[in-house]
Amino acid sequence: VSGPADAAPDAGLPFATLDLDRARRQGAPEVVFGEGKSPEQCVAIAERLAAARHGVLLTRTSDAARAALRARFPEARVHDVARTAWLAPAAPRPVVSGHACVVTAGTSDLPVADECLETLAFLGVPAERVADVGVAGVHRVLARADQLRSARAVVVVAGMDGALPSVVGGLVAGPVIAVPTSVGYGAAFGGLAPLLTMLNSCAAGVTVVNIDNGFGAAMAVWRLFSAAGREELVPK
Amino acid sequence: VSGPADAAPDAGLPFATLDLDRARRQGAPEVVFGEGKSPEQCVAIAERLAAARHGVLLTRTSDAARAALRARFPEARVHDVARTAWLAPAAPRPVVSGHACVVTAGTSDLPVADECLETLAFLGVPAERVADVGVAGVHRVLARADQLRSARAVVVVAGMDGALPSVVGGLVAGPVIAVPTSVGYGAAFGGLAPLLTMLNSCAAGVTVVNIDNGFGAAMAVWRLFSAAGREELVPK
Amino acid sequence: VSGPADAAPDAGLPFATLDLDRARRQGAPEVVFGEGKSPEQCVAIAERLAAARHGVLLTRTSDAARAALRARFPEARVHDVARTAWLAPAAPRPVVSGHACVVTAGTSDLPVADECLETLAFLGVPAERVADVGVAGVHRVLARADQLRSARAVVVVAGMDGALPSVVGGLVAGPVIAVPTSVGYGAAFGGLAPLLTMLNSCAAGVTVVNIDNGFGAAMAVWRLFSAAGREELVPK
Amino acid sequence: VSGPADAAPDAGLPFATLDLDRARRQGAPEVVFGEGKSPEQCVAIAERLAAARHGVLLTRTSDAARAALRARFPEARVHDVARTAWLAPAAPRPVVSGHACVVTAGTSDLPVADECLETLAFLGVPAERVADVGVAGVHRVLARADQLRSARAVVVVAGMDGALPSVVGGLVAGPVIAVPTSVGYGAAFGGLAPLLTMLNSCAAGVTVVNIDNGFGAAMAVWRLFSAAGREELVPK
Amino acid sequence: VSGPADAAPDAGLPFATLDLDRARRQGAPEVVFGEGKSPEQCVAIAERLAAARHGVLLTRTSDAARAALRARFPEARVHDVARTAWLAPAAPRPVVSGHACVVTAGTSDLPVADECLETLAFLGVPAERVADVGVAGVHRVLARADQLRSARAVVVVAGMDGALPSVVGGLVAGPVIAVPTSVGYGAAFGGLAPLLTMLNSCAAGVTVVNIDNGFGAAMAVWRLFSAAGREELVPK
Amino acid sequence: VSGPADAAPDAGLPFATLDLDRARRQGAPEVVFGEGKSPEQCVAIAERLAAARHGVLLTRTSDAARAALRARFPEARVHDVARTAWLAPAAPRPVVSGHACVVTAGTSDLPVADECLETLAFLGVPAERVADVGVAGVHRVLARADQLRSARAVVVVAGMDGALPSVVGGLVAGPVIAVPTSVGYGAAFGGLAPLLTMLNSCAAGVTVVNIDNGFGAAMAVWRLFSAAGREELVPK
Amino acid sequence: VSGPADAAPDAGLPFATLDLDRARRQGAPEVVFGEGKSPEQCVAIAERLAAARHGVLLTRTSDAARAALRARFPEARVHDVARTAWLAPAAPRPVVSGHACVVTAGTSDLPVADECLETLAFLGVPAERVADVGVAGVHRVLARADQLRSARAVVVVAGMDGALPSVVGGLVAGPVIAVPTSVGYGAAFGGLAPLLTMLNSCAAGVTVVNIDNGFGAAMAVWRLFSAAGREELVPK
Amino acid sequence: VSGPADAAPDAGLPFATLDLDRARRQGAPEVVFGEGKSPEQCVAIAERLAAARHGVLLTRTSDAARAALRARFPEARVHDVARTAWLAPAAPRPVVSGHACVVTAGTSDLPVADECLETLAFLGVPAERVADVGVAGVHRVLARADQLRSARAVVVVAGMDGALPSVVGGLVAGPVIAVPTSVGYGAAFGGLAPLLTMLNSCAAGVTVVNIDNGFGAAMAVWRLFSAAGREELVPK
Repeated sequence: VSGPADAAPDAGLPFATLDLDRARRQGAPEVVFGEGKSPEQCVAIAERLAAARHGVLLTRTSDAARAALRARFPEARVHDVARTAWLAPAAPRPVVSGHACVVTAGTSDLPVADECLETLAFLGVPAERVADVGVAGVHRVLARADQLRSARAVVVVAGMDGALPSVVGGLVAGPVIAVPTSVGYGAAFGGLAPLLTMLNSCAAGVTVVNIDNGFGAAMAVWRLFSAAGREELVPK
Repeated sequence: VSGPADAAPDAGLPFATLDLDRARRQGAPEVVFGEGKSPEQCVAIAERLAAARHGVLLTRTSDAARAALRARFPEARVHDVARTAWLAPAAPRPVVSGHACVVTAGTSDLPVADECLETLAFLGVPAERVADVGVAGVHRVLARADQLRSARAVVVVAGMDGALPSVVGGLVAGPVIAVPTSVGYGAAFGGLAPLLTMLNSCAAGVTVVNIDNGFGAAMAVWRLFSAAGREELVPK
Repeated sequence: VSGPADAAPDAGLPFATLDLDRARRQGAPEVVFGEGKSPEQCVAIAERLAAARHGVLLTRTSDAARAALRARFPEARVHDVARTAWLAPAAPRPVVSGHACVVTAGTSDLPVADECLETLAFLGVPAERVADVGVAGVHRVLARADQLRSARAVVVVAGMDGALPSVVGGLVAGPVIAVPTSVGYGAAFGGLAPLLTMLNSCAAGVTVVNIDNGFGAAMAVWRLFSAAGREELVPK
Repeated sequence: VSGPADAAPDAGLPFATLDLDRARRQGAPEVVFGEGKSPEQCVAIAERLAAARHGVLLTRTSDAARAALRARFPEARVHDVARTAWLAPAAPRPVVSGHACVVTAGTSDLPVADECLETLAFLGVPAERVADVGVAGVHRVLARADQLRSARAVVVVAGMDGALPSVVGGLVAGPVIAVPTSVGYGAAFGGLAPLLTMLNSCAAGVTVVNIDNGFGAAMAVWRLFSAAGREELVPK
Repeated sequence: VSGPADAAPDAGLPFATLDLDRARRQGAPEVVFGEGKSPEQCVAIAERLAAARHGVLLTRTSDAARAALRARFPEARVHDVARTAWLAPAAPRPVVSGHACVVTAGTSDLPVADECLETLAFLGVPAERVADVGVAGVHRVLARADQLRSARAVVVVAGMDGALPSVVGGLVAGPVIAVPTSVGYGAAFGGLAPLLTMLNSCAAGVTVVNIDNGFGAAMAVWRLFSAAGREELVPK
Repeated sequence: VSGPADAAPDAGLPFATLDLDRARRQGAPEVVFGEGKSPEQCVAIAERLAAARHGVLLTRTSDAARAALRARFPEARVHDVARTAWLAPAAPRPVVSGHACVVTAGTSDLPVADECLETLAFLGVPAERVADVGVAGVHRVLARADQLRSARAVVVVAGMDGALPSVVGGLVAGPVIAVPTSVGYGAAFGGLAPLLTMLNSCAAGVTVVNIDNGFGAAMAVWRLFSAAGREELVPK
Repeated sequence: VSGPADAAPDAGLPFATLDLDRARRQGAPEVVFGEGKSPEQCVAIAERLAAARHGVLLTRTSDAARAALRARFPEARVHDVARTAWLAPAAPRPVVSGHACVVTAGTSDLPVADECLETLAFLGVPAERVADVGVAGVHRVLARADQLRSARAVVVVAGMDGALPSVVGGLVAGPVIAVPTSVGYGAAFGGLAPLLTMLNSCAAGVTVVNIDNGFGAAMAVWRLFSAAGREELVPK
Repeated sequence: VSGPADAAPDAGLPFATLDLDRARRQGAPEVVFGEGKSPEQCVAIAERLAAARHGVLLTRTSDAARAALRARFPEARVHDVARTAWLAPAAPRPVVSGHACVVTAGTSDLPVADECLETLAFLGVPAERVADVGVAGVHRVLARADQLRSARAVVVVAGMDGALPSVVGGLVAGPVIAVPTSVGYGAAFGGLAPLLTMLNSCAAGVTVVNIDNGFGAAMAVWRLFSAAGREELVPK
């Protein structure tokens, strides 16, 4: 540029701004949005954070990036459906009491649910998966009602009509976080239909995150678990 | 106008085009959309059709119009929630076997359901009403499953999340006609949210009519009943 | 995942949840949405269902998946325009009286119409096709009016202006199910234009399914035929 | 304002900018959009233009404004449904060969059609009206086909599904100008549905104006008639 | 209606379906959406629930309804800005540890915040209000950071640009529930702008409820508090 | 299909329905929408129509289709920017008096303008092209005002802000047909922005066709020219 | 509320949060959005600020509020079309070199332009108004080109097609701020049409504010003037 | 075409209309929108303008076009992230006092920021870049407040929630130009979400350009700098 340059955010990684201090400040290790990043960039970021003994989660990675991360970090946990890869931090994570439950309406919603589950695993939050219990066969979710009620938070992932969170919200008294997905076609309009359904849920107190945002739902769960025992998780 | 006038549609009723021949052609008596019509206009239309011994249904009438119709036609059936008024045709209506069921998610959906029920009554189609069985308390609709299955067609009326038709569509094997309503606020966008939900229903074979169109759903039921025994209902 | 796993839906098919009991419960054999499934997955699903002597319909299959299904199941009915493949169930299907009619506005709407027709064939519902009778040459559909009236249900498939269902709805007294298609460009907005047209049809009682949802229209027809003689089709 | 004022557009009429020279320049007398103008303002504008022996058309006038214009100008043509009032120019208008035809789908579309017809009358273009020939009873418009073909231009006014211009466009070879109206409810979205229908008309060469813009359609007709004999109509 | 009637939901209150058993089932007393209900209806509902010693919250009440409730129940808590009225249940509510914080961007957002606060008060959840700390003067919210961090959950209410939840989400580690409001004009599109802003928040884990839904945000907080000590709150 | 087949529309061309009688009925030869058609299909259609001595226009053809048409019909007029190919009919076209003018705002609008010009050429309507006279340099279109005024109809093609038709509509008294294009990005929303601009043109009487619909604009011109001398163009 | 109250923003004015320090911090006196505020509230706010010798501007005031302000503050400048009222600060405003120009496309855009002009007057920025120079008569704006070029910034206010900023942007080299208005009907969609037009302006470097936001445009001008001589205007 | 051809815009460059006189008229050298142009076309345009000793900026170029330009013009400044290439004009550019500052919310917004910075460099406007200071970590932008205040104009580039301009607008008193980007997914709707956020900014006087329009923001800055010292920059 023609004027004074901005301070280089990180001399070794010109394509990313890492914040090695965030874990201390916010209580969560680093997360990198992998979309549009090359395999080389993903590996370089992971190397730098691993060297600092921080954990790192990469989301929305390409197939090539995951292959490169697998080769370089055999200890990494890599998930092809969730499109995630992560390295645990060197320091032990605080023990969390209770667990979350991630529910999907259909099998096509699994990639979003798995992104949520992998993020929870990275954050050290135990979680169960309940798949393919959409409301067109409502006996399926009713059969799981006790399992859902035993969780401290329920994430409900659904595309198309997005009706499942309303049913789940009526079955459980605890927090319900709804994730619309872009599964569907035509008047689903890329996830707009289930998004609107969930925002208008007739079950009071259901909250919503962005379309396909399994990562965000996991972070919302983490905020919730964190709130219950925040003192040890978030040093001031 | 400066050119030749159009043929006067009806000398006595310059504000409406009545089609006294429709019942013969299509098998259904006259229906008049009452929105924007004065009490005097509504009475005049009803008088003319009554004189011809045709039945007539007026939908979306104003309070004043219904009062005027009640005063002029004590024998008329007038429904204030449905905003309808109707006179039965002089000729007996064909006997229909079976009945329809009209279900609502909430009490706010009742005006649309009642417009549907009154239209069915006018058409001679027996019908039951099942109110306030929205999916946030899914046990309510499950408790009515046998009642729903006993109907030849089920109309499901829902605003807000519009999720009920998906559950009903999974409970019954017969026709399910979904009616989105403008009940709700904010991201319900005047009924857009339940409309999209219903178009994307995960229960296969659910069909949809326009927002708040209880009349249209009744006509769809009538088409269906008519199809089963069309020979006596629709003279060629 | 870090918590307890969900019950494996089907040990042999980790990528799909089959419901071998559905035919008994709902009276219709299994349907698999093929979009995003590999040829190997499609063949594996079909093999499993064929082994159980269930029929199966695969919709929205890729060219490669259809080739693989053709090679493995020479007896399968595979349709390249409809993008469907199906195997009939071992048990004879109940005999249905009457037939449906599937009408298209233009030749570009044929893939959606053919998906509808193939689904009807799989379900054992007789059907006729009337192609390319859009309203810009309205004499074409008028010439077919008697043919349309002879059907127990008419499915109307149209993109662009989506005007055909309104004309057909005025010609026939029985059920009319409208299917908007994504045929068109510019202000057709991927099928939004004909969808809105159909929802606002001036022919009362026309119902609508999702954009390009030929399968859904067929299921709506099946619900309707089923309703007329449900006792033998849907065992409780 | 704190800076230099703009040149007063018209000392006597601070609320409007009249262009007494436009008739010479563009060949059409003055038109005033009456929405939001008081009866006093409407009368003042008309007085000024009448004094200059110009004609004037006021559209979208309030009831009060039309009453005031009627009282002040007994010779004015005032139309309550069209919401227009006009005074003919003192100079004779050029003779136009041929005539236009304005067609409506339903009786609710008449106010827009009448705004179109009154504008045409003001401009000296002969016109016929054909009302209530919507496509749900397609025989109605077919019965008028010869009448439509005899016009030099056809304006088609329709709300709800907006399907009529596609049928008319297939019946006549001359210009077809489609006017969507805000007639309808729910998914008509204030005229968006018929607007999109008309823009996607399968009848090639149909053109469209804004929702409820009967005035604009008349001006499009006037441009067309003007083009055929422009030399005498538009002095340079 | 012409068929068998639905079971009368409540003989004494034909206009509402009360569920006197809900508090036992779901752990929360009855809430009534007051929009469209007459003062007489509101009083009748409150009388019936008070007789059963249940608490009741009425939201979105009219001015007249609140006046009637004040007159009949001097002990009721009535809030004119929040448009709420409530009676505490006879049984003592469980003691909740911790408190919530409700933050607004501007003074125009206060009615929505107050609906949230009144609902929390009704539910027995302690709460603080922090008003008028929008991001255009970001020092205001920064000055409140410690106060926000001390809460177990933060509700952020904002219209127009809806930017405040992103800033708050970066300041606190616990749950953040964002409520878009319809405050604004033009391209705010009735709350669509802040809704989209919040769904796309760059602060991970922020969740969102419907536009103007202060009640829903309070219920989400209640779910969260309930989850932390559910055993005593929700008897099975 | 399982029911009776539809009458084969054309035994030799199962993929298209040709209407060899249309030229006689509507006065215009056949036009084929080439999108999605293979080179072999395009050639086969052209061969059949050429054999019948009809002309044919193919629009929106692929590069391969145009190459195949060029090879098979050296006499065809093929235009790579317009993506058209056409063969003139054997019979001489009627002589048209006057000409049209096709104007573009920018060079990126040329493909749409050229589709319009090629269609006009095929129809035998003389036309001029005025390119790159967008309103950001308004002197460019002013310099062409006399040229525009000399045309019997002006087609204005513009993307992005779509402002040019308003300026042209103020310069000429004859018909102005506006064509929005999908040129632009971001808030152009695929042509929605110029489409809305044109529908709201402050120049009265401008009409609009679909986004990128150069063909439709040409057909609108043809309708207009046809109207002026219809008797010889359109045999009844 | 049930928890600790927020600090009362201003003991004497519970309905508003005044910031008497803002003028010092940001260099501009207080502005109050008057929509929804009672005459008494408006007067109370003005009294308080006048007592502190601050200036105050109230925008979007009701007729009653302006009457009350006129009665209480005879020295106030009150503008009925702009719906504004203001009191100048006691301290002299800094002298600004140069002036702004506010241009409108039509007379219906004047209220928005006047809100802009009154705000500029309040801020001490000299300004000129150029009214009714929309592009359908493009000679009007061309005749003012030198006047526009003499301004340091040009604000262009336009509804309907919103085309004027593109023409102005091509005529002047300095800053052009475009304000879409809600003037129009149908496909203007409350100002969406001109908003999109302006965002897609083919004149590079035109910037846009919210629909009907004359105040915001004035503030943008003030930022610009402030930037040129910031040191004296904005004390740190 | 069948009518008279348009005047060839430039005999040597049939695919582009160059305006070698614009620098004199408007004070800025030529800019070419590179999207859709081949490497050969880009080189040819640059050669022609270089021969005339004009500078030229090409935006949105393909990788291949930039490679070709690098090879042909080793002195060109080519930027792969910004996708720009430019040659300085032969004549020295006027000296500008002060500088601009371009701020981004995230690293994904850098391509748009860099397009802005390269355009500013081409125009001779000094500029600084401040990257990755989004509001979820609001301390980052606060730490840069003095740097932002030292600029004569600030461009703020942000996708997703688009909240940064509101914070910056509250920190600086000078001009703030907001650029929404298409960074994000789901309910970001291709940049619609940050666009609406910015149009509704609670910081008064922030102006907005089209989505991803870094070039337009630079031109707005150039207009602003030009206005301050226009006399030497824009010869009449």
